[in-house]
This record gives sequence, structure tokens and C-alpha cells, in this order.
Amino acid sequence: MSVEAASTSSWQSEYRERVEGVLERFLPASDSPPARLHQAMRYAALGPGKRIRPLLVYATGVAVGLPPAALDGPAAAVELIHAYSLVHDDLPAMDDDDLRRGRPTTHRAFDEATAILAGDALQVLAFESLVENTSLPMEPAHRLEMVRMLAHASGTQGMAGGQAMDLAAVGRLLERSEVEEMHARKTGALIRAAVLIACAAAPGLSAPKLKALDRYGTTVGLSFQIVDDLLDVLGDTALTGKTRGADALRAKPTYPAITGIAVARERAAELAREGIEALAGFGAEAGQLREFAAELVERSR
Amino acid sequence: MSVEAASTSSWQSEYRERVEGVLERFLPASDSPPARLHQAMRYAALGPGKRIRPLLVYATGVAVGLPPAALDGPAAAVELIHAYSLVHDDLPAMDDDDLRRGRPTTHRAFDEATAILAGDALQVLAFESLVENTSLPMEPAHRLEMVRMLAHASGTQGMAGGQAMDLAAVGRLLERSEVEEMHARKTGALIRAAVLIACAAAPGLSAPKLKALDRYGTTVGLSFQIVDDLLDVLGDTALTGKTRGADALRAKPTYPAITGIAVARERAAELAREGIEALAGFGAEAGQLREFAAELVERSR
Repeated sequence: MSVEAASTSSWQSEYRERVEGVLERFLPASDSPPARLHQAMRYAALGPGKRIRPLLVYATGVAVGLPPAALDGPAAAVELIHAYSLVHDDLPAMDDDDLRRGRPTTHRAFDEATAILAGDALQVLAFESLVENTSLPMEPAHRLEMVRMLAHASGTQGMAGGQAMDLAAVGRLLERSEVEEMHARKTGALIRAAVLIACAAAPGLSAPKLKALDRYGTTVGLSFQIVDDLLDVLGDTALTGKTRGADALRAKPTYPAITGIAVARERAAELAREGIEALAGFGAEAGQLREFAAELVERSR
Repeated sequence: MSVEAASTSSWQSEYRERVEGVLERFLPASDSPPARLHQAMRYAALGPGKRIRPLLVYATGVAVGLPPAALDGPAAAVELIHAYSLVHDDLPAMDDDDLRRGRPTTHRAFDEATAILAGDALQVLAFESLVENTSLPMEPAHRLEMVRMLAHASGTQGMAGGQAMDLAAVGRLLERSEVEEMHARKTGALIRAAVLIACAAAPGLSAPKLKALDRYGTTVGLSFQIVDDLLDVLGDTALTGKTRGADALRAKPTYPAITGIAVARERAAELAREGIEALAGFGAEAGQLREFAAELVERSR
């Protein structure tokens, strides 16, 4: 772990705890009917996780002058979309994974039908989180823009589309540009949305600053996925909670499989640098975002 | 078919064609990538269907003084949620159906992974339909209220919750009140939302009228599902496009299985009458809604 990571973990732990508290409140109680569905939703959303997307929402909030309390709904929303996507991606008909973050996947811990429904209901809850449960008042037009962004990042131009491209690519040799396009949709779109969704509520954010943050979200999103691919090849199962080389075993198209490990590492670092450079017009208020990008490349899980 | 049905089919065909045109425009092109996902989405959403929910949106619009052009987004949204729910309900891990509306189910025509993703993406598109693609301008606060209603009707208090209760009930003998609760969530919530979503955009709708329309949506939703259960037992596969007795074969809890066919028929008719009576405070502008409720009980598919 880098020196920055050690010195800056406090704000990250704070946001992580914060969003976990929000999720805890938003998710339906595990003893209210249908209890099994609610239990599966909680299992999927409250299990161990890095909470990367909510962290980005809150950290972007600092950069654009919004307090965390204004962003609890959006922070929960992006995490719920992420959680739902993991549940569905792990299904037997998709990646057929038994292990996720060191625990049985949702369809293993419950059953397949419950996992499908839990994913469906987590997606709904994400949209609900943007329109209900608001700690602070917000313009309806801003909220609506957030719904639009979340939908765009989740649909066929975003996550669902990226997953479809991923499935279609199994066993095929892709061009580097094709893998980048797939990653941009599958993982990048939601990470970018985490940044933009916080911008949507920022009063008087200038167009150049919005553009800079968009650039940051896009580069950091791709960098994150390349590191993920690298960890799949090189990572320690005990740390990642996933089976090492699982993607390679399924002949999934990963970045290092196409470019080699050294080039993939360099590309991830380059993208993180580009993300930090995009924030040149910001002062100390973008410090958390800069740290986040710098640490991304150093992470081990 | 009843006399009313024959004489009033023109507005229904008009709305049906209208929403199909809207869906055709909203759905992603079948030749844009990821093409297979887009094709599955179109297959699921544009196949033969009664378009009950969009009809209710438009007909409620007439009752509250809103032109169809103001309701194209909401009409498409409720149909997209319905279409996605059918795709997921038909999956092998759920009801394992091969036939839907006389055609292979989506996972049969494509594959399971694509069907899961197509359902996911149709759900997103539903929310997108409420915030984008607007024929007429609408208050952001009204749109937001629609998002809230659609989310509530689709989540664990609505459709997804009802489907979970349905799965949990297989092989168990339920009380009549339990079946009504399950139906209220699984089918009723979205039908009610089709009515309420049109009310959300109506300028100056009085509280008593809103309450009356809510009552109408609730009773008609339950009546619709009881008739569906009856058709499963008594219907002609050639007309319904489903395997006759499929629910009974799976020991699914249906209304007639608990009350007997005569009582179920009477209950469906009673609920439809209640729906029509709820509209007593309306004049001719609620004519389509009255006709809709009257025909509901007479339908043969």
C-alpha cells in the first residue's frame, strides 16, 4: 500500500461507513415480507466491498462544494446498481461464479430465482434512492438529471451493454480498442456516473470544471478496470476474494491478455495520471479525488 | 367478445398502435452494438401483446384532461417494466416457460444470459422513458413523481416482491387474502401505477378524484389478475398463447384454485363493478376507463 493510502484512509473509511449506514436504512428490513428476497438484497448490498463508487460521489461533492448529506441518495444509488450487477453477472447463465468478495455468491447463498429477483429489486431501489429518502432538499430538475445519468450508465450504452459485449467476446481475440470500449461501458460508465451525478446537484458549476471532472471520471473508470484485470491475473485470492485467473480460465477478454502485463500496468498508471492532470483547474478541494486516482494503481484488491 | 368491446375497439387499437410506435422509437436499433442484446429487447417488448397498461395510461389521461402526446413516455415506461418482468419470470430458474404469447420465450429465442441482460436493460429503459424522449414539456417535479411511482410499483412492495411471494408459495395452500396480497403486488401494483402515473402529470386534479382513480386502478388490477388465473384454467392456448393449466401444473397459488371457478368469476366481476362505481364523480371523460373495466371480465385472452 502506498504512503498516500496509509495517510488518507480516514476520509475513505468515513465515507465507507457513511454509505453503509445509508444502505442499511434504504434496504428493506430482513424480517418484512417477502423476507427471503429482502435478505438476499441485504446480503448482496451490505457484504464486504470497497464502495469505490460512493467514495467517488462524496469526494466529487467536496470538489464541487456539496456536503455529504446532500449526496447520500446518489452515493447509495451507484452502489446499489453496482451490487445488482454483481448478483446478475455471477449467475450460472452468466459468469457462473461461486465466490464473490470471499463469500458464496448470492445465488449460492440463496437460490437462482431469488438472486435474479434481488438484482432486479436492487436496481429499482437505486432509482428510488434518487427520488426518495433525501437528507437535504434538492431541485427536482437536479434529481431528474441524476435519474437520467444513472439510467444512461446502467443501460445498453453502459453497464448492461458492456456485459453483453463481454459475453459475446468470450473465446474471441479482441482488439485493444474493443476491450477499452467494452470496459468503458461495463465498468467505466458507472464510475463516470458516480462523478457526474455529484456534479448534477452542484450549484453554479462552470462548464470547464464539469468537463474536467467528466474527463477525470472517464480515465479513472478505465484505469480501475485495467487494474482489476491485472489483479485477476496476479492478485492474491485471499485479498481479492475471487478465484485467481478466473477470467483467463473462461477465455474472457482482459486488457493484460491483449497487451501483456507491463503495457497494461503502464496504461493504468497513465490513465490515472491523466485523471489527476484533468483536475489542474481545481485547488485543494479536489485533493480527495487526486488521492483516489493515485491510490487506484497501487491497490492490491 | 362483448358488445362494448366490439364498439369501442377503435380507441384501444389507436392507443395500442400509438404505444407500439413509441416503443419502436425508444428501443435501441437492432443493428447497433451490442446487437444481440438490442434484438432480444425488441423481441421481448415489441412482440404481440394486449398493451393493457399503456391503454390505461392513455385512457386515464382522457379522464384527467391530458392529451396522449403528454403520456407517451409513461405509457412506454409501464409496458417496458411489464415486458422485462415477463422475460425474467419465464427464465428456467423462475417459471421455466417455453412459450409466451404464442412465441418462444426470450431465453428460448436467444439464450439465458441475453434474456437476463435484456430484462435488466428494459427496466432501465423504462426509467429512461420517463426522463427523456418527451413529446411535450412537463414539470420536473411531475416527472420525478412518476419515477417514484414506477419504482414503487416495480420493487419489493410491488412486482418483484409479488413474484418472490409467488415463488415462495409454490406447493403451499394459501389463504384467499394471501393470494389477493400476492396479486396486488405482482400484477396490481403496476396496473395501479399506470393509472396514477397519468394522474401525476394532471394539472389541478382534486384529491377526491385522485382517490377515485386510485381505487379504480386497485380494483381493476386485481380483477385483471383473477381473470388471468381463470384463463389459465379455462382458456384456449391458441388464444392465450400460453400452455393451459400451466399454473396448476406447477402447483402455483391461483385465485380459482382456492375459491373455485364460480366464486373467482363473481369476484372478478364484482371488482370490475367497484372500479366503475369509483368513477361516479366523473362524466363522459371517464368513458374509456369504464369500458375498459367492463370488458376486462369478458376477455378471452
